[in-house]
Amino acid sequence: MKLWDKGFTIDQQIEKFTVGNDREIDLHIASYDVQASLAHAKMLAAIGIITSEELELLEKGLHEIATSIEKGTFIIEPQFEDVHSKIEYELTSTYGDVGKKIHTARSRNDQVLVALHLFYKDHLQLAHKKTKTLFDTLLSLAETHKNTTMPGYTHLQVAMPSSFGLWFSAYAEVLIDDVYMLQAALKTVDQNPLGSAAGYGSSFPIDRDFTTTALGFQTLKYNVVAAQLGRGKNERTIASALGGLCNTLSRFAMDICLYMSQNFGFISFPDQLTTGSSIMPHKKNPDVFELIRGKCNKIQSLHTEMLLITNNLPSGYHRDFQVLKEHSITAFYEVEEILDIFNYAIQQIIIKDIDLQDEKYHYLFTVDSINTLVMDGLSFREAYQEIGTHVQAGTYSPASAKAHTHIGSIGNLCLEEIRKKFEEACG
Amino acid sequence: MKLWDKGFTIDQQIEKFTVGNDREIDLHIASYDVQASLAHAKMLAAIGIITSEELELLEKGLHEIATSIEKGTFIIEPQFEDVHSKIEYELTSTYGDVGKKIHTARSRNDQVLVALHLFYKDHLQLAHKKTKTLFDTLLSLAETHKNTTMPGYTHLQVAMPSSFGLWFSAYAEVLIDDVYMLQAALKTVDQNPLGSAAGYGSSFPIDRDFTTTALGFQTLKYNVVAAQLGRGKNERTIASALGGLCNTLSRFAMDICLYMSQNFGFISFPDQLTTGSSIMPHKKNPDVFELIRGKCNKIQSLHTEMLLITNNLPSGYHRDFQVLKEHSITAFYEVEEILDIFNYAIQQIIIKDIDLQDEKYHYLFTVDSINTLVMDGLSFREAYQEIGTHVQAGTYSPASAKAHTHIGSIGNLCLEEIRKKFEEACG
Amino acid sequence: MKLWDKGFTIDQQIEKFTVGNDREIDLHIASYDVQASLAHAKMLAAIGIITSEELELLEKGLHEIATSIEKGTFIIEPQFEDVHSKIEYELTSTYGDVGKKIHTARSRNDQVLVALHLFYKDHLQLAHKKTKTLFDTLLSLAETHKNTTMPGYTHLQVAMPSSFGLWFSAYAEVLIDDVYMLQAALKTVDQNPLGSAAGYGSSFPIDRDFTTTALGFQTLKYNVVAAQLGRGKNERTIASALGGLCNTLSRFAMDICLYMSQNFGFISFPDQLTTGSSIMPHKKNPDVFELIRGKCNKIQSLHTEMLLITNNLPSGYHRDFQVLKEHSITAFYEVEEILDIFNYAIQQIIIKDIDLQDEKYHYLFTVDSINTLVMDGLSFREAYQEIGTHVQAGTYSPASAKAHTHIGSIGNLCLEEIRKKFEEACG
Amino acid sequence: MKLWDKGFTIDQQIEKFTVGNDREIDLHIASYDVQASLAHAKMLAAIGIITSEELELLEKGLHEIATSIEKGTFIIEPQFEDVHSKIEYELTSTYGDVGKKIHTARSRNDQVLVALHLFYKDHLQLAHKKTKTLFDTLLSLAETHKNTTMPGYTHLQVAMPSSFGLWFSAYAEVLIDDVYMLQAALKTVDQNPLGSAAGYGSSFPIDRDFTTTALGFQTLKYNVVAAQLGRGKNERTIASALGGLCNTLSRFAMDICLYMSQNFGFISFPDQLTTGSSIMPHKKNPDVFELIRGKCNKIQSLHTEMLLITNNLPSGYHRDFQVLKEHSITAFYEVEEILDIFNYAIQQIIIKDIDLQDEKYHYLFTVDSINTLVMDGLSFREAYQEIGTHVQAGTYSPASAKAHTHIGSIGNLCLEEIRKKFEEACG
Repeated sequence: MKLWDKGFTIDQQIEKFTVGNDREIDLHIASYDVQASLAHAKMLAAIGIITSEELELLEKGLHEIATSIEKGTFIIEPQFEDVHSKIEYELTSTYGDVGKKIHTARSRNDQVLVALHLFYKDHLQLAHKKTKTLFDTLLSLAETHKNTTMPGYTHLQVAMPSSFGLWFSAYAEVLIDDVYMLQAALKTVDQNPLGSAAGYGSSFPIDRDFTTTALGFQTLKYNVVAAQLGRGKNERTIASALGGLCNTLSRFAMDICLYMSQNFGFISFPDQLTTGSSIMPHKKNPDVFELIRGKCNKIQSLHTEMLLITNNLPSGYHRDFQVLKEHSITAFYEVEEILDIFNYAIQQIIIKDIDLQDEKYHYLFTVDSINTLVMDGLSFREAYQEIGTHVQAGTYSPASAKAHTHIGSIGNLCLEEIRKKFEEACG
Repeated sequence: MKLWDKGFTIDQQIEKFTVGNDREIDLHIASYDVQASLAHAKMLAAIGIITSEELELLEKGLHEIATSIEKGTFIIEPQFEDVHSKIEYELTSTYGDVGKKIHTARSRNDQVLVALHLFYKDHLQLAHKKTKTLFDTLLSLAETHKNTTMPGYTHLQVAMPSSFGLWFSAYAEVLIDDVYMLQAALKTVDQNPLGSAAGYGSSFPIDRDFTTTALGFQTLKYNVVAAQLGRGKNERTIASALGGLCNTLSRFAMDICLYMSQNFGFISFPDQLTTGSSIMPHKKNPDVFELIRGKCNKIQSLHTEMLLITNNLPSGYHRDFQVLKEHSITAFYEVEEILDIFNYAIQQIIIKDIDLQDEKYHYLFTVDSINTLVMDGLSFREAYQEIGTHVQAGTYSPASAKAHTHIGSIGNLCLEEIRKKFEEACG
Repeated sequence: MKLWDKGFTIDQQIEKFTVGNDREIDLHIASYDVQASLAHAKMLAAIGIITSEELELLEKGLHEIATSIEKGTFIIEPQFEDVHSKIEYELTSTYGDVGKKIHTARSRNDQVLVALHLFYKDHLQLAHKKTKTLFDTLLSLAETHKNTTMPGYTHLQVAMPSSFGLWFSAYAEVLIDDVYMLQAALKTVDQNPLGSAAGYGSSFPIDRDFTTTALGFQTLKYNVVAAQLGRGKNERTIASALGGLCNTLSRFAMDICLYMSQNFGFISFPDQLTTGSSIMPHKKNPDVFELIRGKCNKIQSLHTEMLLITNNLPSGYHRDFQVLKEHSITAFYEVEEILDIFNYAIQQIIIKDIDLQDEKYHYLFTVDSINTLVMDGLSFREAYQEIGTHVQAGTYSPASAKAHTHIGSIGNLCLEEIRKKFEEACG
Repeated sequence: MKLWDKGFTIDQQIEKFTVGNDREIDLHIASYDVQASLAHAKMLAAIGIITSEELELLEKGLHEIATSIEKGTFIIEPQFEDVHSKIEYELTSTYGDVGKKIHTARSRNDQVLVALHLFYKDHLQLAHKKTKTLFDTLLSLAETHKNTTMPGYTHLQVAMPSSFGLWFSAYAEVLIDDVYMLQAALKTVDQNPLGSAAGYGSSFPIDRDFTTTALGFQTLKYNVVAAQLGRGKNERTIASALGGLCNTLSRFAMDICLYMSQNFGFISFPDQLTTGSSIMPHKKNPDVFELIRGKCNKIQSLHTEMLLITNNLPSGYHRDFQVLKEHSITAFYEVEEILDIFNYAIQQIIIKDIDLQDEKYHYLFTVDSINTLVMDGLSFREAYQEIGTHVQAGTYSPASAKAHTHIGSIGNLCLEEIRKKFEEACG
């Protein structure tokens, strides 16, 4: 059944191509469509387009559909183009004429848009929550390992002393920047587009404040053209926000894979978290973190995809927008799984002893040596040159470590301040 | 069954995450794995690692698997990580110890790589073939409509006379540039990586020339490290080549959607190729071309995805490479479907009459007017200024069209030369 | 002069390559470096590393440098690697030993980072301000043209009635979503990284709260490793925020170029805002909006550039970060110019009369026709089919327009609500 | 002077914005414009549009301009929009009316396009040549170090024995794949677009074969619309080809930076090739390779930039195309410098002794141990399990290395075969 059936048959090959895998993707937004349809129906009753008896029938029908979605028995059969056609058909076939009224004053354009806004909002909040869980885990690991020193690197060269506490809490603090973006994306989708119809509103006297409140949106996309301009733009923003989070996780995973290398040997994971090789029997590879890295990198490319699809298109709906759905919806599920797995696996990290007396770490403390000279009265630049001369001549003898006490240093991680900043970011 | 089973159980949650949808994706390369396994087995026999009786058993087993793949009955059950484990298991469980020998002197790293090379090679050739079909269709349309004039635009402003013949054959000729890239990608994958094992070869005296010939590769990736560096790089190259093709089709689809707008009204398509609106009963929308455009734009972003996954990774295999497979494999299927649909739909195009006398096309022939003055002895720049003065003053009267005769102009489309260039591009 | 001079000469060719155009780029952040150096010097005095007399000398020297920057006489000569070396050299050569003390407890890594944070913060605020100016212009244009109807399109096909008021205010409202991202980016950079030194802090007892307050930062990047992880991540976030803004402007420019086409003929601009052709004397092209579109599209690609440079790099400073500066700094200047030009040009738009009685706009009011039938008692779907049948049979006669009254429709633009939402977005 | 001057003044602010930095960029293509103008003038004489005396004057004038470009004295003053206006002005002001004839039958659209084709062709050939130089250097290094073993890694974990010979020649062989793409890009631009005028040809009877031969192009872009569709598409193809090369160099640089880390300690470079730190006196950082990596990664993003600018634009010239020039031209210069520097620096590499007896490399030879068991009659999978059991129990004793003899392995680098493949790639 097509909502726009007009008496001629659409070409089968064309139909297969245009529908694509829409039925499958639409299952992810089916419950949100029902939720929005309920709000729309109530609004139609409130403004007198349908009667309260008709509303009752529609509510009954929509609740039945909601139940079948929840149970996993809801199916979009091949004769339907999408979830929207299917739902209208179900209502009409079961409850008769009232089903033909539900589409009054709306279009599939705003119907799918409002379902997407609801889906995005829910899942952005879920991503935020899972980010908080990982953040807490990292702060806890930082607290546990705050006194375990490790070499710090710049240019991948041994630089200055660092610590596992510093390392874990660094990534925790970076997650806060990701939360700023998640919050911005949330504001973008927390605006009701329902009522924009095909993108130009309608002459029915609909009450958009009613549906805004009913659906729990913070505000409206007032302008009906603006609402449709959100197609692609919402997804670009989301891709950017999820991509930011993935950027952090991907770089963290890179550190983990590097530090697991025998040449670093800083950390390991229990055997059960590693995987083997089909040819080398000794291998215990960090596949889980490599796949986190790879999947995060994939998700970071979503921004380009969303851009390329919509860039340079004039305003107004285009069918291209259908192509936006698949990867933006799956990106959420992937991010959620990645956050769960990261949080699960990182807790099992094994911190190994690092022998900082090893010759390769010889120069870790040159800056502390300079510090001593400065405290003895040399200017910084003179002290730098004196230590440098010793290093160049091979006469440098390693200083022992000095205490680092300032805010954010290895001796003063400020975990509570970082925790507080996260909370303030949730605005 | 894991090829690397080492007596401890891998964590279930980790396994689910690391395997992901690999079983499903691997079905697309299963037949290529069988093909490469056959060549590998024959080579093992040729160098005496297995006996000819063992080879017979392996051939029998692999042919049985090939048949089940062809019939669609081949399944990778949940206890297997991937197609490679499944095939080794099948051979071992049916034919005993010989199955345990097939993996001699190879690794899953080169096993999947050679299967991907074979898949990519086949599908690049198929994309090339389908591009040729579309090219032929476009040249044929150009021939049919070579005398039908249309306005040409620059800056979306009415510029100079064009024709449908010129328009169709323009996109045909641009496809030749895409073929150059497809050919370059083909050369990249038409090199045998089998024998690189985990990326460092092996101490078995394998005969890589044997498998190169058996598999029909043009040459080898000689260096075993180079072979593994192809992971990601092959996909980047393919993404670039398919993206080039999609770039052409996407821009062509944009022209089509624009020219179908009532404000242009240059072309239409039969009702069966259009789709309707859920709210506006008059709509006959060009969804098929919008979806071609959208899908082509999506595929153009694959290049960024492939880059982001592998960029800045040190040499040597990383599990991230698994993430490369899904979208590069599906991109081929999508491109093939798009080429089919484009070729199918464009043949049904309806060219409408364009009234070039309409006031909005008033200035289409100013350059022809200049030409007349130049032929009368004015310099080009003076003639330009004279006509410009008339236009500015509102006293310009439209010239009638002059003949365009030079190579590649509306009067001389050079379709045969373009056809010849395509053939030469196939190298 | 090199801050790290250690008695051997660096290869000239290598030096040319590594310094690149850094001296030129650094001029853009010179004043911010001076500002941060002042705060750092004051802090050094406050904790007793330098005396108050030494502080006075440094303040004098830094103010002199600030003055020369402001006057445009500040130059980074070829013997200096960058602005940081130049400033330390100036202080030392004029004021002697105190110049050798200013670098105590900092590194070029945090020195350039804090200068970039300050630059980004200032320019994000400027971008926000200019966005507000354009927003106000658009709302004002919407108010002026609120009663001027235009056709609305979906799929580039004539769809339903729209208006210039709706069009202008649509883009105004979309700018609010861009402000959410600008605000998120602002929060990201409004954190003091000074004191992170080379990325691992120092054993000097520096007071980072002091410099945070002195520089007007909202908070700190507490963790010193997190501060350095901001390199690339800050730029990615900024690229995403500026890219969002550019996305809106680029699509708006596309509409403008399309509506200026003779085939639409909805709008024009005064001759002085158009440009001509070297060959076609009649041309008055919308180059300014095409260049806005092109430049905005270029800036949208900055996100991928920033990602590719830093992706998959382990934590800790890498010299690659130098490459991040050029295009992220110039992107700000370009965005500022684009906002100015857009705001300047759009005010001169000429709205042309559109004859909605023209045959091509025949079906603009089918939804209004349905509405009438619904009000007469038909269900929406029945009414849709009835009108559809008339359209298909060629018996549809256009309805006259009905009033649109709901929130955000052509009859009720909600400009004040949109204005209020912008203000609330400014956090 | 504007070629399209029509008696009204263009707004100053708009002009500044639209011209942008075009004058500066155009200097890079000035000599190619002269070259193409010469060919165009000769063709105009050949078909009788100008006399042979006029041709002599134009040739004289163009040669004078060519000389001043070569000497570096050629300047595009602020009153000119671009190099094209400047050249026409010079010819007219020095030689009078004949200067007003040179633009007959061409437009700036094909004038800039042919200059770009010539620039791109020259520089693609230069990139190819410099790639060959680096390739030769790498093969020579491979030959020198063919017997020096190093650990090979998968998943950044110690895997199997590799060698410096294998490592150097791996990147050499990968460069061949990049050459395939460079060649494809070369074919794309080695087609004469001159004569396409504004994109729709002209009614002058121009001889495009004449200019094709005169300019040394392999063939023509026959179709005049196709020629203009090359704007953006040429740049996309070039970005993809240069990006491929940069992809190889970037990953190679990553290996170098990693192997220079004290934790690997495989290689170093002379002090003169390293740079220091402003705070840590011991640092000798691999900045040159980090900047190669960073700049290569930047260039890899050019593909997205070129795409975003032109994607979804209808056919026909748009002023957006101006924005394509800057970064595609500078990318060539950058790639050339990177290739020079890489080739220069890599020759100075110092290969350090690696103690493969170190405990961390204990398991390098497990696959060789399996091999021994297989040669003793076990099946591969059984041998794998036996060695695996020893590894897991801690009873594995390292095998000594076995000879690797097969094609492309550490014992048989096939440098001559790789050299031959490079030569065949040059088509």
